[in-house]
Amino acid sequence: MRSVFKNFYKFSYYANMDLSSPHASFQARDLKIIHTQHYITKPPCDPKIMTFGAFHTDHLLEIDWSDKMGWSRPMIVPFKNFELHPFSSCLHYAIECFEGSKAYKGPNNTIRVFRLDCNMFRMKHSAKRLSLPDFDGHELQKCIEALIKVDQDWIPDNPGFSCYIRPTLIATEEALGVRASSRAKLFVVLCPVGPYFPSGLKPVRVFCNTITIRSYPGGVGEYKVAGNYAPTVLPLKEVQKIGFHQNLWLLPDGLVQEMGVCNLFFYWKNKQGENELITPMLDGTILPGVVRDSILNLAKQINKFKVIERKVYIQEVVEAISEGRMIEMFGCGTGVMVQPIEAIGFNDKIYEVKYNTNLNSGELTHHLYQLLNEIQTGERSHEWISII
Amino acid sequence: MRSVFKNFYKFSYYANMDLSSPHASFQARDLKIIHTQHYITKPPCDPKIMTFGAFHTDHLLEIDWSDKMGWSRPMIVPFKNFELHPFSSCLHYAIECFEGSKAYKGPNNTIRVFRLDCNMFRMKHSAKRLSLPDFDGHELQKCIEALIKVDQDWIPDNPGFSCYIRPTLIATEEALGVRASSRAKLFVVLCPVGPYFPSGLKPVRVFCNTITIRSYPGGVGEYKVAGNYAPTVLPLKEVQKIGFHQNLWLLPDGLVQEMGVCNLFFYWKNKQGENELITPMLDGTILPGVVRDSILNLAKQINKFKVIERKVYIQEVVEAISEGRMIEMFGCGTGVMVQPIEAIGFNDKIYEVKYNTNLNSGELTHHLYQLLNEIQTGERSHEWISII
Repeated sequence: MRSVFKNFYKFSYYANMDLSSPHASFQARDLKIIHTQHYITKPPCDPKIMTFGAFHTDHLLEIDWSDKMGWSRPMIVPFKNFELHPFSSCLHYAIECFEGSKAYKGPNNTIRVFRLDCNMFRMKHSAKRLSLPDFDGHELQKCIEALIKVDQDWIPDNPGFSCYIRPTLIATEEALGVRASSRAKLFVVLCPVGPYFPSGLKPVRVFCNTITIRSYPGGVGEYKVAGNYAPTVLPLKEVQKIGFHQNLWLLPDGLVQEMGVCNLFFYWKNKQGENELITPMLDGTILPGVVRDSILNLAKQINKFKVIERKVYIQEVVEAISEGRMIEMFGCGTGVMVQPIEAIGFNDKIYEVKYNTNLNSGELTHHLYQLLNEIQTGERSHEWISII
Repeated sequence: MRSVFKNFYKFSYYANMDLSSPHASFQARDLKIIHTQHYITKPPCDPKIMTFGAFHTDHLLEIDWSDKMGWSRPMIVPFKNFELHPFSSCLHYAIECFEGSKAYKGPNNTIRVFRLDCNMFRMKHSAKRLSLPDFDGHELQKCIEALIKVDQDWIPDNPGFSCYIRPTLIATEEALGVRASSRAKLFVVLCPVGPYFPSGLKPVRVFCNTITIRSYPGGVGEYKVAGNYAPTVLPLKEVQKIGFHQNLWLLPDGLVQEMGVCNLFFYWKNKQGENELITPMLDGTILPGVVRDSILNLAKQINKFKVIERKVYIQEVVEAISEGRMIEMFGCGTGVMVQPIEAIGFNDKIYEVKYNTNLNSGELTHHLYQLLNEIQTGERSHEWISII
């Protein structure tokens, strides 16, 4: 196992992150806060009402940039609409990227943020890929933490509830033409969210989409850029029509990539009879998920099975299912945390994997879900949590 | 040649277009016009000032849609900024598409629109691909023509100047979450533009980008969706650093696709010694350009050489150049119309093709450019022009 650990720490996307910027960044010490005079009525803590992305909090963070003036002073202001010029390059050329993270209420009303530094790091990468301005990730994290504090009453303390954090960076050049934007807006909005699965985990059925390709080598699949998402909307509608919940994204040769907007994990007995938790390696076509990285880390600490990142082909996945070697399958992401998978549709066949019906998931899946939960809500202390 | 014609008309993307919508569409007869009270000072007709996308006209067209209410009444209103909710799905997931067309001043101050019906058709396709609402293309065209009439004083009548038309459709769902938007905004803006090349055509040097892939089979390269453009901004900056003007987009096996935001044409002597005008076929990864389609059509009418749409590989392109068989190379698109190419950088070699230095392009390239110009400005009457 030692060599696996070594490789992991060497190649982990989030190991030895550098959040600094070679250019002048905005600074959290310049943050100005304008409190709202019109506090919004909060929705009830009902998972059916407090769904993902439906409600915003009282304030937002905004920081503007121009190539002439650099970054503006960070401002926390009452939540408002943005005024955008109809020529804005975010509306025509999708020069825009975003992040997703979560804050939790912990014991003694503490506010806990989970690995937000990883999101800052990834956002810097996405921004660079789109020629959007760079910034100091530590400074943005401090500004976001200040926003969360201002709106802390919005973080539900019911179990399973949290506050979703959505940093976004959009190009606001007020002229048409495909080129680097000379203006940009960085903003962060928050939304209170209920548990993804109100009554515990719920396994899904996924369909191997061999018509639509989410991301190819040479594309931008590894960045959290807006343009990766629009093309997935129609294929999702189509797959839901035939009785599946999500698309499993593949390359034409069967290379497994993601599921919906989740990373993927398979827990199987390999051909040598060893238990292995395996996930597609970061080959440039896959989003380097923060939860993916966390699960890899937690699984290695469990130290009871092999933990592998490599190319995974759908042919080996269905073969393992057919041969009864597949133990568990799940997706993971910030929205859902952990998403058990009960069936894969591939080449006109459906491959099903049994799960523990008491847990509504496999046992390892459930254990990892619990571990993440305990870390996030404070039952278990961990360096991944910042208390703000 | 007859069979080529037959195939062309059979397979042309814009043959037998259906612009109708199975759903209720907005209607041009319901159009309401609110004239501005503050007319903007027009920029001087100087090609250095009146650059692409820099100036807007006095008005814009807007039509809103929601799944509950359907399409709103089309409105021509004074040019204004849009108010967008920070959760708007166009800002996070790039659920947005656009079009580009041009209007020209012709003899006797007539206003001439070039194949706008093709843009309406393509926009309906892009919209459907992103689960954005469908509409009747004829009705949108009529609304756009009304907008052009309202702002007709903005169309410069100097030679080479025109009025660029930018229809745009954006998702305005005010909630986070990757799904079909329940709200959308269709808007059309106009901008007066000077000639792309103030002093005639100007050949460019293009670089075969084998690192970044613009579009793969199974992707959305054939649609004019915003997300296709953002990933090209950084590669353009990089290629310009090494002395080229544009990227030539390829698949890893060398399949030639596009150049920058242009379609590509090669005029060569084939291995059988026949003159051929050849362009990459519409394989789903290539934008079905309106100018591309027009050039195919005009070239077939010239009837002096073969006109071919098929898979083109960079290996055959550089072989033809090396063997002295390449006669001319050019890109085409609504912005530039025709763009001569003088050199291709591929695999550490530069392949150059001589051109007529009086014309600053090849002779066929220049002839096609002239033909398009004459049709657009009214020296030559053609069914592609609507006079409004």
